Amino acid sequence: MPLFPVDQIRDFGRQLFCVCGAPEDEAAVVADHLVEASLMGIDSHGVIRYIMYAQECVNGNIRPGAKIELDWRSESLLLADCNHNFGQVGAYRLVDELVRRAGEQGIAFGVTHHCHHVGRLGAYPQAAAQAGLFGFAVANSDKSGHFVVPHGGREARLATNPLAWAAPTATDPILLDMSTSMTPEGKIRTALHANSELAPGRILDAEGRPTTDPKNFYGPPRGSILPFGGDLAYRGYGLSLLVEILGSTIAGVPVSDDVEYMNGFGLIAIDPGPLTQGRFAELCSQLAAHVTSSAPAPSHSEVMLPGEREFRTLRQRQVNGIPLAEESCRQLESVAAEVGLNISF
Amino acid sequence: MPLFPVDQIRDFGRQLFCVCGAPEDEAAVVADHLVEASLMGIDSHGVIRYIMYAQECVNGNIRPGAKIELDWRSESLLLADCNHNFGQVGAYRLVDELVRRAGEQGIAFGVTHHCHHVGRLGAYPQAAAQAGLFGFAVANSDKSGHFVVPHGGREARLATNPLAWAAPTATDPILLDMSTSMTPEGKIRTALHANSELAPGRILDAEGRPTTDPKNFYGPPRGSILPFGGDLAYRGYGLSLLVEILGSTIAGVPVSDDVEYMNGFGLIAIDPGPLTQGRFAELCSQLAAHVTSSAPAPSHSEVMLPGEREFRTLRQRQVNGIPLAEESCRQLESVAAEVGLNISF
Repeated sequence: MPLFPVDQIRDFGRQLFCVCGAPEDEAAVVADHLVEASLMGIDSHGVIRYIMYAQECVNGNIRPGAKIELDWRSESLLLADCNHNFGQVGAYRLVDELVRRAGEQGIAFGVTHHCHHVGRLGAYPQAAAQAGLFGFAVANSDKSGHFVVPHGGREARLATNPLAWAAPTATDPILLDMSTSMTPEGKIRTALHANSELAPGRILDAEGRPTTDPKNFYGPPRGSILPFGGDLAYRGYGLSLLVEILGSTIAGVPVSDDVEYMNGFGLIAIDPGPLTQGRFAELCSQLAAHVTSSAPAPSHSEVMLPGEREFRTLRQRQVNGIPLAEESCRQLESVAAEVGLNISF
Repeated sequence: MPLFPVDQIRDFGRQLFCVCGAPEDEAAVVADHLVEASLMGIDSHGVIRYIMYAQECVNGNIRPGAKIELDWRSESLLLADCNHNFGQVGAYRLVDELVRRAGEQGIAFGVTHHCHHVGRLGAYPQAAAQAGLFGFAVANSDKSGHFVVPHGGREARLATNPLAWAAPTATDPILLDMSTSMTPEGKIRTALHANSELAPGRILDAEGRPTTDPKNFYGPPRGSILPFGGDLAYRGYGLSLLVEILGSTIAGVPVSDDVEYMNGFGLIAIDPGPLTQGRFAELCSQLAAHVTSSAPAPSHSEVMLPGEREFRTLRQRQVNGIPLAEESCRQLESVAAEVGLNISF
């Protein structure tokens, strides 16, 4: 796959979102977020999202420049109405506010209304960790994103509902970013296009029977994705409900509501300073050294921390550039042209 | 298995812990907690723990009546030194304090020092949910409880590290209580005694090779338990580290420390009132109805909520009594006699 210089991709994104109507600083927030996801190897949430975001601006689902309204409902509970601005603009604003408030109170929680796609969820607890705090985040989706069955069911009732947490160390944060389902929908589509099978235990057909054929997922009638956990999937189901509740229910948004949003985003920030006398990052580094000191199992060459692979990829790609498929380049050029930007890769 | 009346088992427990030196109210807290676990069908964390707890009192590892020292390190961060009292005494005290403070601030977090076995972890977020709040709890263990490998490793570095959350509905709370490992150690011991095999994907031998033979776990040399998740076990590993950090690291307790504790217990309580205008339980009920309305998969007869099975068992056992094996009865009589209590089942 051809590699492109990071600056070129970043500048293009900033320009693109400005042309879409975003103020310069907000365009940078969004483009830089997507570039970082690509740098970390999370291409599904990286710069290929330029395409979807620009289209969402064109069709009015993203409203660039919309005011993020902050409403502190109590000392430590923040409701942020994102008014359909880019999800990243609202989510980073919420992180900033919560980091500041947690510094005063010890802990703070915030959740959104009318939030669009927040992108790579791990970015937000990562930002908290880079400020020395502990962060825990969730993102659910409205009903249109419900592909996942409850444990024991055959009709989709939940989204792939990711959760993420991060804590600082002396170097990179420890960073877990995981779906609570067995697979994102994107991987099923990739298998469909490649005419290949999925690993067993990922999806059900419309009758609720296990299948590995992506065609049985798309139907019609449509199949579903299993919650995370295999024969212990009641756990993934329970974690998915946790995401649903902290991302939306607790913000007063009913699951049956027709209010449009893409991600319901919730974040808890804890300032560990008062509990650890400022030694939190040092103690997390000790913990990291403890777990990674395990000899590897025969099937592995080393024990890594959550997020470690992604930070390694980031450093490689910062030097080597960001890979983009031919087809992605064409679509990027096309969407740019649509909003009046002349660009070629 | 013979069934015993709930009152008989509860009164015996209260008496037992009083004789061990606990004040009457604290003895009741512990006995009632263990009785409730048995009623809910979680027998491994139920009244058979009378035996271990009484022995721990005898050998001085539990110090009945020890003062729970509460230290608010900031507006919303509580450090509770349990001073080796029963884990339940400290943990419920912490819940009470956090529920009150969350009612004032919106959210509060607390964590313990010198906490003994907290028992059924779900009991604590359940208590928060029964007060109308959202609760999320974790419990790690000190190094002596490290049976679980990090993902990709073959040497145990973490405990089975459960997490639990609960939210109120119009009826029973939604309640998830799960280990972040593939199995608790207790189930491996049960299989060993029964001379049976474990399900695949649970444990490794000392060389890090998958095995189903419990003898390969106990060794010597000792094997290990896999983190939750099968081929996605990096997620269970990441959740286990979350438990470690919120249960101990954030309390300033290094993983390398020799300070003795059994569970490092952490709890987040959120008062959803200000965010939902008091409609949280109603909205959670709507969510519950939404997910359980899914038609069951062929292998299931219905879709249940996390915790629903346990609350059903509770109502059955409240009427029918608590099952106790002959061997458990003998051990209960024996430990009672050891502390000077004459009892026979």
